[in-house]
Amino acid sequence: MKQWYTEQASAIDSKLIKQAQAYQAILTKPQGSLGQLETIAEQFCAWQGTLKPSLNNIKIVVFAGDHGVYDQGVSAFPQAVTVQMITNFLEGGAAISVLSRDLLADFSVANMGTALPLPDNYTQHPQLLNIDIATGTADLSLQPAMTDDELSQALSAGRSCVDVCAETHTETYVEPHVKMPVTNSRTDLFIGGEMGIGNTTSASAIYAALLSLSPAEVVGPGTGVDADGLRRKQRAVEKALACHHAVLDKPYDVLRCLGGLEIAGLVGAYISAAQKGIPVLVDGFICTAAALIAVKLNESVRDWLLFSHQSAEPAHIIALDALRAEPLLQLGLRLGEGSGAALAVPLLKSALSLHNNMATFTAAGVNEKV
Amino acid sequence: MKQWYTEQASAIDSKLIKQAQAYQAILTKPQGSLGQLETIAEQFCAWQGTLKPSLNNIKIVVFAGDHGVYDQGVSAFPQAVTVQMITNFLEGGAAISVLSRDLLADFSVANMGTALPLPDNYTQHPQLLNIDIATGTADLSLQPAMTDDELSQALSAGRSCVDVCAETHTETYVEPHVKMPVTNSRTDLFIGGEMGIGNTTSASAIYAALLSLSPAEVVGPGTGVDADGLRRKQRAVEKALACHHAVLDKPYDVLRCLGGLEIAGLVGAYISAAQKGIPVLVDGFICTAAALIAVKLNESVRDWLLFSHQSAEPAHIIALDALRAEPLLQLGLRLGEGSGAALAVPLLKSALSLHNNMATFTAAGVNEKV
Repeated sequence: MKQWYTEQASAIDSKLIKQAQAYQAILTKPQGSLGQLETIAEQFCAWQGTLKPSLNNIKIVVFAGDHGVYDQGVSAFPQAVTVQMITNFLEGGAAISVLSRDLLADFSVANMGTALPLPDNYTQHPQLLNIDIATGTADLSLQPAMTDDELSQALSAGRSCVDVCAETHTETYVEPHVKMPVTNSRTDLFIGGEMGIGNTTSASAIYAALLSLSPAEVVGPGTGVDADGLRRKQRAVEKALACHHAVLDKPYDVLRCLGGLEIAGLVGAYISAAQKGIPVLVDGFICTAAALIAVKLNESVRDWLLFSHQSAEPAHIIALDALRAEPLLQLGLRLGEGSGAALAVPLLKSALSLHNNMATFTAAGVNEKV
Repeated sequence: MKQWYTEQASAIDSKLIKQAQAYQAILTKPQGSLGQLETIAEQFCAWQGTLKPSLNNIKIVVFAGDHGVYDQGVSAFPQAVTVQMITNFLEGGAAISVLSRDLLADFSVANMGTALPLPDNYTQHPQLLNIDIATGTADLSLQPAMTDDELSQALSAGRSCVDVCAETHTETYVEPHVKMPVTNSRTDLFIGGEMGIGNTTSASAIYAALLSLSPAEVVGPGTGVDADGLRRKQRAVEKALACHHAVLDKPYDVLRCLGGLEIAGLVGAYISAAQKGIPVLVDGFICTAAALIAVKLNESVRDWLLFSHQSAEPAHIIALDALRAEPLLQLGLRLGEGSGAALAVPLLKSALSLHNNMATFTAAGVNEKV
């Protein structure tokens, strides 16, 4: 049976890339002098099928879930923090909450399943998608992290989060002093974030499996474990690779055995966004693992992915290279939540503003190269 | 006689750095997980003498001037482009014009002296500072680029551009759909840009002199010369170093012999900003040469400099290292005008917004590390 996530991504109008390149060449600057910003503008032209692309409506969903591998002592933080951070996201106090507000983005949190229960007074929060598939995953170092049914639910939940993007229309965004009418009802950019104590271990195991890397190559300090913690993380990945050795070349099974509910949600969301023609800005170490699985499951998804930053986690650069990704930022970030992607959005906006608003050599009466 | 540019930069309240670090440590994120953004927030706290820093009023001045070394065939563009770009800046069609508008920055252009005359209808433009010291510099490969008097005028002009920063107050900035009251009358950030056909040759010669580098190490393609042009640039730097060998260790004389009027303007502006306690965001290859001279003339200036990006010009990384600079962006930019600095401003704003608006562990009820 053909699964929804293997269906082709939306087609891209490649002749617009050429037209956009030709247009960039007549703007009043040395050719290529805006570096990566030129490529970004050209990609948005192709994605949106226009030479005047826009970036107004940004959808941010943070996927949260717990990890059974927490029991192996892989994190510097207690597991209770996953639920606590969900409430912090909803209360507006987390980094991604602050950045989403500043971007006037449409922000929500998908609770994919946590070990501890979410406090009752939050379960009906308007920005919460309370999917709650299980009380976290099983310990991936000992058994498959998810059942087939759990994974299927998580992928579909990710898909549903993006479903609304093609239709959503918010009349006005309001912040103190500024009322800004939104003229474009379609989501111009999707950002997925993640939260899950223990999830750098899951992402590391995924990289080890899909990129044939050793535990030592893929394990880093995450949110800040000490040397002993690092050894425990590495040991957990070793055990996981041994336990699931039979399926390490199968991306679906790698996700089921080594992934997290929130990572599966991201995979579903990325694939769905690509199928609906919504560009995705990928965040850091965990999100890139989801992007890698998405591309391994469905190669056509790659055309809709932009990579926001290279995180401080040592193996991230290897994963980015494997995806032929040129990240926009290298700021030593290692927070997750989608924060690195949110931080890169103004660069995308600037790229489009320059493309749309700069004068041409002819219009400005400026000589081109001699 | 003690010169104004050797007077100490404004003192920095270093205990605020420690207080800001302590505050960063109680925000709901793993310590250090916001990487360079944490350092930036801490620096702004110290610069502004507050734990709640703000970044609203941004002053951008593009210094433009011509270079006699153009005659050596060092540029891909005709010299007329310097004046043409000044009018493009003022008409709002250049990259820096677009970015300044998007930032709601206070934007002006300082005409330091061009080979061709500025069209009459622009000389009274409200955003033009028509300083016009000379018809460009002399050919630095054959003789000192500036006289002592020209250099002194250029440094003072740079200083004057910043003088107004401590007082300027614009009531409201208006752009389509948005009226934003400005509550802070002081300039929070100064950005200098530059325009001058031939000025990567001048900057390369400055780096060669002050960092004891060979012409081959400092000369790159600039705005896009071909292989022959590159050889001519390298030859021009060789000739310059031979011609001015007696003064290569003296930063003032290096600026006089190898600099440009616009580079000298930047040096004066950077030093003056530091003396007035206004943080400076340094742009790319040319601006970093001005920053290097400013720091060599007056070491205390370094405390007020932030570096926005590492440009595509190969020697830029060497210069940044010499200044112990950690640039925020690496996007392959090589446009100048201050564009790289303008592009980095949203990162500074995000750094301050996160610092000011994130919840603390206690307030959000989130556990810290175990």
